[in-house]
Amino acid sequence: MLKYLTAGESHGEAIIAILEGMVSGLKVSSSVINRELKRRMQGYGRGERMGLEKDAVNIISGLKNGATLGSPIAMVVNNKDFSISSLNALSSPRPGHADLAGALKYGHKDLRNILERASARETVARVSVGTVCKILLMEFGIDILSHVVMIGGVEAHTKDLTFDELRTLAEKSPARCADEAATKLMCEEIDNAKDAGDTLGGAFEILVKNVPPGLGSHVQWDRKLDGNLARSLMSIQAIKGVSVGLGAIAARRRGSQCHDEIIYIRERGFSRKTNNAGGIEGGISNGEEIVLRAYMKPIATLKRPLRSVDIKTKKQAKAEVERADITAVPAAGVIGEAVTAFEIANAMCVKFGGDSLSEMKRNFEGYLEQVKEF
Amino acid sequence: MLKYLTAGESHGEAIIAILEGMVSGLKVSSSVINRELKRRMQGYGRGERMGLEKDAVNIISGLKNGATLGSPIAMVVNNKDFSISSLNALSSPRPGHADLAGALKYGHKDLRNILERASARETVARVSVGTVCKILLMEFGIDILSHVVMIGGVEAHTKDLTFDELRTLAEKSPARCADEAATKLMCEEIDNAKDAGDTLGGAFEILVKNVPPGLGSHVQWDRKLDGNLARSLMSIQAIKGVSVGLGAIAARRRGSQCHDEIIYIRERGFSRKTNNAGGIEGGISNGEEIVLRAYMKPIATLKRPLRSVDIKTKKQAKAEVERADITAVPAAGVIGEAVTAFEIANAMCVKFGGDSLSEMKRNFEGYLEQVKEF
Amino acid sequence: MLKYLTAGESHGEAIIAILEGMVSGLKVSSSVINRELKRRMQGYGRGERMGLEKDAVNIISGLKNGATLGSPIAMVVNNKDFSISSLNALSSPRPGHADLAGALKYGHKDLRNILERASARETVARVSVGTVCKILLMEFGIDILSHVVMIGGVEAHTKDLTFDELRTLAEKSPARCADEAATKLMCEEIDNAKDAGDTLGGAFEILVKNVPPGLGSHVQWDRKLDGNLARSLMSIQAIKGVSVGLGAIAARRRGSQCHDEIIYIRERGFSRKTNNAGGIEGGISNGEEIVLRAYMKPIATLKRPLRSVDIKTKKQAKAEVERADITAVPAAGVIGEAVTAFEIANAMCVKFGGDSLSEMKRNFEGYLEQVKEF
Amino acid sequence: MLKYLTAGESHGEAIIAILEGMVSGLKVSSSVINRELKRRMQGYGRGERMGLEKDAVNIISGLKNGATLGSPIAMVVNNKDFSISSLNALSSPRPGHADLAGALKYGHKDLRNILERASARETVARVSVGTVCKILLMEFGIDILSHVVMIGGVEAHTKDLTFDELRTLAEKSPARCADEAATKLMCEEIDNAKDAGDTLGGAFEILVKNVPPGLGSHVQWDRKLDGNLARSLMSIQAIKGVSVGLGAIAARRRGSQCHDEIIYIRERGFSRKTNNAGGIEGGISNGEEIVLRAYMKPIATLKRPLRSVDIKTKKQAKAEVERADITAVPAAGVIGEAVTAFEIANAMCVKFGGDSLSEMKRNFEGYLEQVKEF
Repeated sequence: MLKYLTAGESHGEAIIAILEGMVSGLKVSSSVINRELKRRMQGYGRGERMGLEKDAVNIISGLKNGATLGSPIAMVVNNKDFSISSLNALSSPRPGHADLAGALKYGHKDLRNILERASARETVARVSVGTVCKILLMEFGIDILSHVVMIGGVEAHTKDLTFDELRTLAEKSPARCADEAATKLMCEEIDNAKDAGDTLGGAFEILVKNVPPGLGSHVQWDRKLDGNLARSLMSIQAIKGVSVGLGAIAARRRGSQCHDEIIYIRERGFSRKTNNAGGIEGGISNGEEIVLRAYMKPIATLKRPLRSVDIKTKKQAKAEVERADITAVPAAGVIGEAVTAFEIANAMCVKFGGDSLSEMKRNFEGYLEQVKEF
Repeated sequence: MLKYLTAGESHGEAIIAILEGMVSGLKVSSSVINRELKRRMQGYGRGERMGLEKDAVNIISGLKNGATLGSPIAMVVNNKDFSISSLNALSSPRPGHADLAGALKYGHKDLRNILERASARETVARVSVGTVCKILLMEFGIDILSHVVMIGGVEAHTKDLTFDELRTLAEKSPARCADEAATKLMCEEIDNAKDAGDTLGGAFEILVKNVPPGLGSHVQWDRKLDGNLARSLMSIQAIKGVSVGLGAIAARRRGSQCHDEIIYIRERGFSRKTNNAGGIEGGISNGEEIVLRAYMKPIATLKRPLRSVDIKTKKQAKAEVERADITAVPAAGVIGEAVTAFEIANAMCVKFGGDSLSEMKRNFEGYLEQVKEF
Repeated sequence: MLKYLTAGESHGEAIIAILEGMVSGLKVSSSVINRELKRRMQGYGRGERMGLEKDAVNIISGLKNGATLGSPIAMVVNNKDFSISSLNALSSPRPGHADLAGALKYGHKDLRNILERASARETVARVSVGTVCKILLMEFGIDILSHVVMIGGVEAHTKDLTFDELRTLAEKSPARCADEAATKLMCEEIDNAKDAGDTLGGAFEILVKNVPPGLGSHVQWDRKLDGNLARSLMSIQAIKGVSVGLGAIAARRRGSQCHDEIIYIRERGFSRKTNNAGGIEGGISNGEEIVLRAYMKPIATLKRPLRSVDIKTKKQAKAEVERADITAVPAAGVIGEAVTAFEIANAMCVKFGGDSLSEMKRNFEGYLEQVKEF
Repeated sequence: MLKYLTAGESHGEAIIAILEGMVSGLKVSSSVINRELKRRMQGYGRGERMGLEKDAVNIISGLKNGATLGSPIAMVVNNKDFSISSLNALSSPRPGHADLAGALKYGHKDLRNILERASARETVARVSVGTVCKILLMEFGIDILSHVVMIGGVEAHTKDLTFDELRTLAEKSPARCADEAATKLMCEEIDNAKDAGDTLGGAFEILVKNVPPGLGSHVQWDRKLDGNLARSLMSIQAIKGVSVGLGAIAARRRGSQCHDEIIYIRERGFSRKTNNAGGIEGGISNGEEIVLRAYMKPIATLKRPLRSVDIKTKKQAKAEVERADITAVPAAGVIGEAVTAFEIANAMCVKFGGDSLSEMKRNFEGYLEQVKEF
């Protein structure tokens, strides 16, 4: 079983994660994590701070000579602007943020004490953790991508693209969107919103390829793969909706138009012509691509701030203006990949056990053989 | 902290749950649970079996003279048709069900070994657990309802209804829908689907009233209230999408049209004019109504069965026809209330601690005072 | 990963357990569990109630035709004297019991509300769970025994006995002690204590044979096998001390007289001539027999009751006299086996993964081969 | 609820811990942690490395201006000799260490890959975590000490000493032993062992003062306070036995000589004249001092090394000689305080809830009042 905790404030010294339970013998390099951290910083519509940051992970435990030991992997990413103690106090909570609810909960009179941790900067830790998980999954041929399917109402059309095309096109797009025409419109919409002092939300899709059937379980509520994926995705800052496969569209279809008929192909085993279920049935992966969507609300910090209340005077005030992203949907997709990678990797570790990569692989291959001969 | 495990197969002897961590001194009566179990069985579009079942819970531990002791509460609901060992083996997995993925995972050649547990009959246990949680929440004035907002593409219009109106109207409707006109159309659509040997999905909304600000936390990914709610809802059989507040609609709005401006009213404290966030910001309840939606795919067992493959012969076959619900969206709403009640009750127990109801209440009231004087 | 919860009061309707996470395809019979439940009831020095009880488990889920499905296993043992609601209230807490601390914690004015759950009758559930775990372990050749090594100061001498001899002799002894002479003295001591209206404690040893090296882990505090075994044993009612291998004796030795030198025998691999470590080094099983001891205080309910205080009047009173065991050390050994079986089985499931017995065995055998070829 | 993970290898860059769940508003200073880290390094019989190390914690998250925010607290202690990748490979496992079992488990051919994490240097992280917990407990008047009661067979006599005397005397003693005469003998015994190239074990006692009644619970096996304390203590490197109160001595007594009679004193409430139970009955704190003992085996690395086997050649070899402590019992007591502090603090957080120190205190005081008026 994998576990992780993250720590760190936005303007604290560093963002930290500990990932516990990883097998030994996995080659992990900081540069792969840094590449993902860079992907996390990009996307049209980010503010200036993003440009300055060049996050670099320091793996301070769990590795020797570039390979995992089996011991916990601690990763630290220093913050360039470590200034938490000198920053001015804030007292006008931003609607849409944890500011007010957090201040009431923890009894803080300086909202900074909340927003420093509530900030999506924390996802630096989750991307680090998720990248190690991706590296593990790659050893089993499991691959994950994300692409933006909507920003500010502009939808992408990507139906006929393959996994590889989606990735290639999305990675080239400033909006991380595989539809070139939509990308252009998205960027325009971002520019418009920027001009208006406003912000945008959107949606991204996650695909996971080559997942074996049998991850997760139907037997207990907290072991369902879709449930755990939903938790991880919904826990990303600003996500307000999560779906699997057709999601809400499935709710409108008749059964005969929704469920994926089962076929059998000698070389491949059981298969489907459609994948409306998004690769999960009964809380268990069914061997098809896992397809997830997450819906993100617009950034809560507006240049033209919303009305709020000063928590000290209780008088009407403008919400604080901390930062100036217009949208972060492209980055959120990268974070979505990371948390998905964690959940899939964890389900793999639970199902296949093993303490070294070679033991885990041997168990995995034995199972694939079992499935083949089923 | 609350925990629960459920057990039991659809045609096994009984469905069982153990709820661990409940405070002492809470009055719990079987009849309240039975009423919820009855609600769970209802709704236009259910098959005949539903009519026969009259679930009655037996609380076999944790209570004395109708009040909780603080010890684990075990609840057993006997199955009327206890016949698991004599039922014939099944070999044609139903698309949309756990049948095939589960059989591959657990190495079963009789699909019944999977579907007996994957069946939504398991939710009898979750409704029992959730009802005890609801009873706890009622002590703190927290109230939960669900109503159906869509079946088979027919949408309800309920925008202007109050919490109480929604409940009253939904409970009277055979579709558990608060819009009378929509109810009629839903029932017609169900009849049509039935005639076609087909099935329907839909969506329901959950509202939670009087939740104090401060449940859940932004500080760690697995403590976010929305994340945990998403997991619990997605873990309900056939749910493919979950949203909080505006959900996917928020993703289309600009920030200025989405976030809920903060006001302050002396008698009520901080408040909002809108509730697009659905009562949760930054993974923390903000004191507004919690608003959740879940999207359910159509029932996977069709009278006019889909194409499948016999797992023994590997030849094409018709999927098994086990049961004949046309839709279960109304019931799913009741289950949604239950799992929501669990998550909110758990967040309450974590925040307020306490081992007796009176201790928990004292802590709660102290906090309300603190919030008031913030 | 295995999990379990137990529920049930001493004079409630039943004692219940749910065991979650068991592989499919394991043959489990009620009669094996009942045999262990019978072993749990025996031992010289038990009161009359024990004679009356004939516990019989009803496995109400997780099995079909005598084999596990992979779904949670719920087990219910009905109480013969189901009378919780009609029993008189108690107000003089017994020193040594949970009575007073529990009443203060949960705010109960009737001590019965505590002692009904604190009673060692709860271990009926743990023995049921542990027996299923033992059955799993037997499939891997792992065998567990317990024997009493001390009662009331009378010590057993069993140094030269083999695993099988220990078991055979202990099972024949009314004190579950493998030393015949000591058994006799123990029984006399029990008779003496009985005559004095007093009670006795003692100690038992657990041995686990054929545990593969590599269970548990040194990498994180909560994954150490010895730590988890200590928790499980210490959680048994009345246990006040737990040790591994030489235990407290190791603390008196020099390193050169304590640590088990490593040898290598071609047919057997790495081995030891001594086993002072009790089969666990660094929180990991090392392939030798696991050796545990638990120390039990005397029964807290005395026929000649201790001084106490009436919780209502606050006046001095005699402690309540609920039941009349003189000692329960022999039974505690059986319970110790059960909780040990759970921990070892869980560590096996974590290390080897797998959802069916055959998958778990394949993974196990692959690992044994790996160790052999190390 | 509190959680923590530790990470870091002995010669890696740093030792790290993340403590999750701490309330806001607690004043924490690095210097207090450093003082405890220094206490952890001391004690007669430590090797030279200890002299060089001057551990200094860097709290990189969770604090602002010296007070906790409520967010996770990450603590990093850099290793002076960061050299893990350049150290030579080791192939002769030390009896008594994780070396061999770990190598087999994780498939490592260089034992360093195991011992780097198995090393007690990891306890730097646990002492850091435990010190934060101690600081929390001090706010509630709860105080913890440890003192050495035995080294290498030399026992201390401290029966008549008060809590404060025990602490003062132990802190002055090079053996952390409150008995001056015994200290002298212990040091001699350490010198003797050193001369012989051998090592020593021993035992320490932990006392916790002012614990309210009601921490932990009897209702479920994994909530018993003594069980959780036993796990934490047994998980400390080299601990082979753990006891509560009289421990193994209780097993030899009759009930009438063992259980602590209950008295009632108007000003103080329920009380005891003796404390043989060590402050825990039925898995619940009873308001008396918590008394724990842990038994430590001798250091496994001997200057005059034990026989072992080279894991590559399979030929007999001398065990590796890594380091040269003669005994670490005095330090182990400090670590014991830390893990005890964590468990008590966690039980406090679970029982009293609260997200800020002032909320937790209010709940605590309400409970004390309740107990007083019981």
